[in-house]
Amino acid sequence: MNFADLLLGKIEEKQNPSCVGLDPIFEKIPQQIKEEAKGKFGPTFEGIAQSFLEFNKRIIDSVADVVPAVKPQMAFYEKYGSFGVRAFEETVKYAHKKGLVVIEDAKRGDIGSTAEAYSSGHLGRVASWKGEEAGYDVDCITVNPYLGIDGVKPFIEDVKKYGKGIFILVKTSNPSSGELQDLDYGNKKICDVVAELVNKWGEGTEGTRNYRPIGAVVGATYPQEAVKLRRIMEKSIFLVPGYGAQGGTADDAMPCFNKDGYGAIVNSSRGIIFAYQDEKWKNKFMPEQFDDAAKAAALEMKEAISNSLKKANIFHW
Amino acid sequence: MNFADLLLGKIEEKQNPSCVGLDPIFEKIPQQIKEEAKGKFGPTFEGIAQSFLEFNKRIIDSVADVVPAVKPQMAFYEKYGSFGVRAFEETVKYAHKKGLVVIEDAKRGDIGSTAEAYSSGHLGRVASWKGEEAGYDVDCITVNPYLGIDGVKPFIEDVKKYGKGIFILVKTSNPSSGELQDLDYGNKKICDVVAELVNKWGEGTEGTRNYRPIGAVVGATYPQEAVKLRRIMEKSIFLVPGYGAQGGTADDAMPCFNKDGYGAIVNSSRGIIFAYQDEKWKNKFMPEQFDDAAKAAALEMKEAISNSLKKANIFHW
Repeated sequence: MNFADLLLGKIEEKQNPSCVGLDPIFEKIPQQIKEEAKGKFGPTFEGIAQSFLEFNKRIIDSVADVVPAVKPQMAFYEKYGSFGVRAFEETVKYAHKKGLVVIEDAKRGDIGSTAEAYSSGHLGRVASWKGEEAGYDVDCITVNPYLGIDGVKPFIEDVKKYGKGIFILVKTSNPSSGELQDLDYGNKKICDVVAELVNKWGEGTEGTRNYRPIGAVVGATYPQEAVKLRRIMEKSIFLVPGYGAQGGTADDAMPCFNKDGYGAIVNSSRGIIFAYQDEKWKNKFMPEQFDDAAKAAALEMKEAISNSLKKANIFHW
Repeated sequence: MNFADLLLGKIEEKQNPSCVGLDPIFEKIPQQIKEEAKGKFGPTFEGIAQSFLEFNKRIIDSVADVVPAVKPQMAFYEKYGSFGVRAFEETVKYAHKKGLVVIEDAKRGDIGSTAEAYSSGHLGRVASWKGEEAGYDVDCITVNPYLGIDGVKPFIEDVKKYGKGIFILVKTSNPSSGELQDLDYGNKKICDVVAELVNKWGEGTEGTRNYRPIGAVVGATYPQEAVKLRRIMEKSIFLVPGYGAQGGTADDAMPCFNKDGYGAIVNSSRGIIFAYQDEKWKNKFMPEQFDDAAKAAALEMKEAISNSLKKANIFHW
């Protein structure tokens, strides 16, 4: 199946173009979850990783009927070494079991055989005694374009071969993203050039909905850039970070959508999964109800985006 | 200790500014190593990872008195999931035990708290039940600059705090590196702008030898660019990929050095670790002597670089 069809189908099913970032942070995991994991695995990285997995499972169970996708950020897992990566692997499996699309945020970027290694491990198949086997088997991954097409091509090949997707960094949500991405190249910016490359690299990959599995990362924090980038990459889906904790609003994310209501999926991580610690929610939910708090925050985000789509005269449910 | 002092000290000790890339590839690991691992761990990812570790240990034992550093490329480990990452962790420990500097090639790049997660896991300390603990504890890591200072700052902080190093991608060795890196920005190229940023970000980090732990990746395949980049980043050490299998020669790598014979470390991966399969070496070494073949290739590379340094009137041993 074409990844664009898969993702847009799930968005339609949930009537919600937003996703939940699964970025577990040891200090923010509820005490009860941590104590249980520590009891079983000791005060070790294995115990920490286990607490992440249990936390994620509870969040996934709670939001699975609200959102089409989850976005685990690899950094938060790999920082705890092989045990953390195991928790990532198990999280991917569990999210798939619950019918969710898994967007791996890893921003990988390398060249030639190394880019192939990343792509085969995350999206494709790796060589093994059985010939080849799936690795992480996520549905899509974020990719860094700084190395040019050599770094992206192996991913595009696996996108085509295995029905996977990629989101290439074009305009990231952080304050200093302009340091490189906004430099002038003639009358364009570097991020415009990257957008043109993304558009070129994605040619001919359209699914039945006329969207492509070669997408772009465009931060909600730069709505004016998004207007222009949306025009350059008409058929690409935008993965939109920067909502909530980073300051982007639902209105800010609107330029990332096409008029048909598709073309973007907005992510929130901390604002959802650690909602139980927010001023706004912490009087309504106990720490052990962190999953209910996450669901409430996810539903609120869904409604905010729906309202903004309505206001912006974009198709909405 | 300042990472620049650590690395340059080891280069001096070995009289050799080159390193060996530890990029294990399942299909290229000698049969005997694979069969042993399979016997112990079955035809599993765990078995593959174990074969990587045994292979690496033999290579490390063999080249430890020739080179100052090894450069494991994370992609080749993480493609086999948590077991692969475990092999990476054990490889790092073993290389350290043998007195080698470990340059992790991971090209990580992200923003804010995510960049912090990468940096704390790879270079620094991660939060745990014990307060904090070291993660991978490599000596340095390669970093992608596309996200601007937000993506680099957490690494620089850990460089200062823990005596670690980073090599920021400036001009990569691959054919299409110019697609973004060579775009004109006024009368400069984008890679020049990145070089200026690297130079700025590294200010004040000099060690006793007046070199900085904030270095740059500059491919041996672009010697003319290197001349200019060497001038812009006077005090940075260059990590130089592209030698050997990618077509770069020892002469090509010369512009990456300063006249004092320091300022660069040249890497070769496949050309060393899989030398036993090369036309050149395979009549001299049996597959089970892959480690001896690697040492012969590493010594040949050392000599080639020394000869080129001599020819270019650069300090050499």
